[in-house]
Amino acid sequence: MAHGLNAEDARITAGVLISADRRGIGSHGVARLKRYVDGIKSGVIRLDPKVKTIKETPVSLVIDGDGGMGQPIAYRAMQKCIKKARLSYMCLATIRNSNHFGIAGYYVLMALAQGMIGITLTNATPLVVPTFARNATIGTNPIAIGFPAKEERPFLLDMATSTVPRGKLEVYARRGEPIPDCWACDQDGKPSTDAAALLEEIVVRRRGGLLPLGGGSELTGGHKGYGLSAVVDILCGVLSAGMVGTEVARQPDAPAGVSHFLGVINPAAFLGEESLSNEIDDYIRMLRNAEKAQGQERIYIAGEKEFIAEEKNRKFVPIENNVFQTLNLIGSEKGLSITEYKTGKDV
Amino acid sequence: MAHGLNAEDARITAGVLISADRRGIGSHGVARLKRYVDGIKSGVIRLDPKVKTIKETPVSLVIDGDGGMGQPIAYRAMQKCIKKARLSYMCLATIRNSNHFGIAGYYVLMALAQGMIGITLTNATPLVVPTFARNATIGTNPIAIGFPAKEERPFLLDMATSTVPRGKLEVYARRGEPIPDCWACDQDGKPSTDAAALLEEIVVRRRGGLLPLGGGSELTGGHKGYGLSAVVDILCGVLSAGMVGTEVARQPDAPAGVSHFLGVINPAAFLGEESLSNEIDDYIRMLRNAEKAQGQERIYIAGEKEFIAEEKNRKFVPIENNVFQTLNLIGSEKGLSITEYKTGKDV
Repeated sequence: MAHGLNAEDARITAGVLISADRRGIGSHGVARLKRYVDGIKSGVIRLDPKVKTIKETPVSLVIDGDGGMGQPIAYRAMQKCIKKARLSYMCLATIRNSNHFGIAGYYVLMALAQGMIGITLTNATPLVVPTFARNATIGTNPIAIGFPAKEERPFLLDMATSTVPRGKLEVYARRGEPIPDCWACDQDGKPSTDAAALLEEIVVRRRGGLLPLGGGSELTGGHKGYGLSAVVDILCGVLSAGMVGTEVARQPDAPAGVSHFLGVINPAAFLGEESLSNEIDDYIRMLRNAEKAQGQERIYIAGEKEFIAEEKNRKFVPIENNVFQTLNLIGSEKGLSITEYKTGKDV
Repeated sequence: MAHGLNAEDARITAGVLISADRRGIGSHGVARLKRYVDGIKSGVIRLDPKVKTIKETPVSLVIDGDGGMGQPIAYRAMQKCIKKARLSYMCLATIRNSNHFGIAGYYVLMALAQGMIGITLTNATPLVVPTFARNATIGTNPIAIGFPAKEERPFLLDMATSTVPRGKLEVYARRGEPIPDCWACDQDGKPSTDAAALLEEIVVRRRGGLLPLGGGSELTGGHKGYGLSAVVDILCGVLSAGMVGTEVARQPDAPAGVSHFLGVINPAAFLGEESLSNEIDDYIRMLRNAEKAQGQERIYIAGEKEFIAEEKNRKFVPIENNVFQTLNLIGSEKGLSITEYKTGKDV
């Protein structure tokens, strides 16, 4: 707000960021605020975008975000999808000219809160190398899909279509540890285990990149992760006639042109909310009760770890010390400071 | 037909099987006929099912297949979905109590032929081990999704959510070669590279199983393949209140209870068929023209290898000699023989 974002957009954006930290996904939490502030300062993120619905049917939307903050664009589009799904059983929305919108799962949670099935996809900066290519061409393009349960926590899959995000390489580079060879490839397109050298290639020289889910060869299924990433790109950026692949967020001083895809399905289209949530409970229990592998005590359901973190962090949301410092720095520029916090291991 | 299947169902089923062989997917082609004939003989596959639409809205269907052949059930459901998507922009169908339906991609091709986006999912016999479990609990549950192009071949991703199908282990076991450790795990849930020993475990003792896309650990993304397989199970079998997980096709003498999910999206819901197919052409070219990895000459688009095979096999469809023998054996039981064929390497 101090930088000119209106109160409602700021509230929505803060909600999405804090939800990520609360759910234990610090990489997509308030740590992103610095980038957003930089984007606003440089004019790459527009404070007063003219968000337009280009096309609308009873079950679909095409939206142009006009370069605004990603969170308010996606949040309002999801609200519209939920409303339309209540009237017409389902709604799919494809969105162009947006920006980074935080965790994809947030918008799925909005649908789940209404007892509906939610889907959220987004494309992203090209960081991933297609099978048999050598350079980053497509994004880590996440798929998030969730189903409401009754007594159990919802089923909520929220996964990048790369094996890992870039942040994982950074963790291993700092530790000086080798990475699995299904994470990233070098300038020749060859998988490598040297995180520090790979990061130098990817970040500084813009060669090589992350590998799709399944790794760098067809033998290990890498073409499947590559295919899924492309499907996400198509549903987000091709369907909306927006930006895709190497066009997305490529220059720091030009509009990012991120594209999203949202879907809401009303269980009334099938056998109803009561039937669905009961059946999801049973399904979750079937998975949880499967016999455990040697040395394992628990089988997790998609989203379960994040829901547990959320329950634990209801009052206080942990952030790393360097993120805290950055937040204070951003605030101090505008004479603001953080008023309530605890420090230490017990938080 | 000689076993009592009506002419139309037989024609549909043969069409789906031959399409698989023509597209180079022999594992799902006429080689499956033996199992279907066995299923018909034992009564597990019903010849005259009362296929019922349990619930219908302008954009959705819930269908009960009553234990009939999978192909005619899915084929007719896809026809209905296309018809409804023409009127109402999209249609999603969830189907219970069906049987093996061949390649998922076939039904997507039906939508593509009408200029529409197609989605086909199915659950299957439990062969895949969830992350941190030790036994097969969910199926290889494939995801097929396709987008129509204009001058290019369509984009058609058709992938099992396991790293590989069981047939790949059989190939390596015959050759006595080690397999990558992301393919399958033993009775303790530990990944192994011994294909012959793993097959003995999985097939004879029904322990261990195939690993999800991403392999046997969270480090390599196995929880993502597991999550995707569960999503397919939910959309097919939970939404339809049909069979899921360990319930599917578990006993050879009981109804298989396979569940499917079909979706058709009319591009008119977004920016129209003309815009979509043009944009898909551009997208395919962007991927194809990316710089190749060292030693690679070509970047493939999802479905491209299968479309190339289909074009090559327009007149004659190659099958392996042992499959040919089995077909003749099935025919000879009923006094039938194959009339037109070629043999030899040049075919």
